[in-house]
Amino acid sequence: MSSIEQLVQNFKDQQLLLPIWFEKGALKLINQIELPHKEEILTIQEVDDLAEAIRNMTIRGSGAIGIAGAWGMYLAALKSGGAREEMHRAAKLLKSTRPTAINLMKTIDEIMNSVNGFEKLPLDRIEAKVIEILERQLQFEHALGSNGADLIEDGDTVLTHCHSGALAGSGYGGRALSVIRKAHELGKNIRVIACETRPYLQGARITAYELQKFGIPVTLITDNMSGYFMSQGMVQKVVVGSDRVAANGDLANKIGTYMHALAAKKHEIPFYTATSSHTIDFCLQSGAGIEVEYRDAQEVTTLNGKRLAPKGVEALYPSFDITPNAYLSGIITEKGVIAEPFAINLQKLNIQVVH
Amino acid sequence: MSSIEQLVQNFKDQQLLLPIWFEKGALKLINQIELPHKEEILTIQEVDDLAEAIRNMTIRGSGAIGIAGAWGMYLAALKSGGAREEMHRAAKLLKSTRPTAINLMKTIDEIMNSVNGFEKLPLDRIEAKVIEILERQLQFEHALGSNGADLIEDGDTVLTHCHSGALAGSGYGGRALSVIRKAHELGKNIRVIACETRPYLQGARITAYELQKFGIPVTLITDNMSGYFMSQGMVQKVVVGSDRVAANGDLANKIGTYMHALAAKKHEIPFYTATSSHTIDFCLQSGAGIEVEYRDAQEVTTLNGKRLAPKGVEALYPSFDITPNAYLSGIITEKGVIAEPFAINLQKLNIQVVH
Repeated sequence: MSSIEQLVQNFKDQQLLLPIWFEKGALKLINQIELPHKEEILTIQEVDDLAEAIRNMTIRGSGAIGIAGAWGMYLAALKSGGAREEMHRAAKLLKSTRPTAINLMKTIDEIMNSVNGFEKLPLDRIEAKVIEILERQLQFEHALGSNGADLIEDGDTVLTHCHSGALAGSGYGGRALSVIRKAHELGKNIRVIACETRPYLQGARITAYELQKFGIPVTLITDNMSGYFMSQGMVQKVVVGSDRVAANGDLANKIGTYMHALAAKKHEIPFYTATSSHTIDFCLQSGAGIEVEYRDAQEVTTLNGKRLAPKGVEALYPSFDITPNAYLSGIITEKGVIAEPFAINLQKLNIQVVH
Repeated sequence: MSSIEQLVQNFKDQQLLLPIWFEKGALKLINQIELPHKEEILTIQEVDDLAEAIRNMTIRGSGAIGIAGAWGMYLAALKSGGAREEMHRAAKLLKSTRPTAINLMKTIDEIMNSVNGFEKLPLDRIEAKVIEILERQLQFEHALGSNGADLIEDGDTVLTHCHSGALAGSGYGGRALSVIRKAHELGKNIRVIACETRPYLQGARITAYELQKFGIPVTLITDNMSGYFMSQGMVQKVVVGSDRVAANGDLANKIGTYMHALAAKKHEIPFYTATSSHTIDFCLQSGAGIEVEYRDAQEVTTLNGKRLAPKGVEALYPSFDITPNAYLSGIITEKGVIAEPFAINLQKLNIQVVH
């Protein structure tokens, strides 16, 4: 068994829900577009096909995309025998699939830097780097999960929004679901309320699917119900992921997060984000500097190709919103839980900022 | 032309979007289930078929159901020549379709009371009563709309939730949309943000459809976006309907209303309900006394028969939520706009409570 095959076997033995892995000379990935209706495993033989899978959201989530990038570079090295030109082409192609995915850029740069100066890039070095990247991501999820699980009490119902789970990471629990999974594994009797997350329904489709897989009790609700359930004392904690965290703790996350935060504040329910220390952007003073990306409004007006609204109606789809730091009870990272005042305590994380 | 035919013609001349009307000896109604994909007009010849249409939501909305009840009694009288036994059967059948629809009960009782003591119930009296009921509902919508339109300023974007419009009333604008339509007709340059209203999507399907029909600019959003748009200064007023208003002004309305109210309060945006003075329940001291009805959770997990979530996942569907009076800027009724303190000012409405 090669060390790569050992790694995959080792990951599978740990009951990880892998978004992507290597098997019999090819990459395998779960088609996340088809979940939960179909558990389709795709076989990828070429880097170009992997690039397309990243581009069209067959694989998604910041951690998972970074891992996919690493596997893509491994595949390219394997196929080309490490030919310099092909490796550079693969790196450029993979990076172009999701231009705002920092994790993807960093991962590919890390691999290329590890073989800097070689004419023919050595496969064993690339292999070692891929293993290092995967193990680091898994270790991150365990550390994050353990830090967050301390905040969850026995008997809690934890509300989450969107999907910040195993298939968006290395297979353990990504970010928010690592906290939830760890608390569950520690024997805490918890339940989860998963918000469906319109318009793309990541919560209904993927979060609910993963929680079912992991045997954690889950109840699905529409996003507009969280306030009602909070008012009824049916939610004890909120844990969400984050797309970006500003230096003062302001949080960019999937559209709808802000309204859950407003309701949580009103009902004095602790509201946490589970994130990577690398997601914190120290160059961004506050959330005011974050430009909200608008996506195709057809996601709002149609579902599975069927129109939900009258023909020609205008719609808008801001893909995320900003939750001011005043609504956050803590920022859960792999390095520890950061408490208020965030602007000061985040600095103490002492993360190296590279530009 | 009979006086009934004159009434229908008169209503149509006023550019009303009638949910139900009488034409060539039969009832016609818009199949609201098929909107906005298909504008299907159903022909109803028998009271039993009308009862089924009310039961299965082909026609819906408190005002429209009351009107449907009146038309049903007219149809029964026309078919039976006013035979006492058949009229009682029709009354009982129609009332049984939606046992909690107060408007339907009241309307049918009013018609039956108008012919009390007659052996054979006189058609002309029933006809006169039906005309009175329809004209009263239309007049109510105009009065409500005028009172509310005073609160809407030129240039406002008004956010609304669910459907509280023409097809839920006599065809002018029901409740919330009467306010919006009147402001638009008065020449105020307004826009509407319609929230889709998961899980049943009344906002996407019917509110957006009506606003398009009336030529009022409308933008459709998912419910979880209202907070974001409010934070961006893109909403100046919120106007929603109401299922029930307590004596202190606490408001029961479609699930999701409460979260819009929380966000509106945070961003200092006036939040109104448009309602009938008869919807105010003076026997109900506060919202705490309102039991929230749970509906079939399949509405959350499936759409158009297709599953949105993994098989077997638990879901919940509370059909409405309670917005405390502290979040209300005013209660718009046909008798005027009631301001704080609601408990005192609602009493001054001097509405006769009949039990």
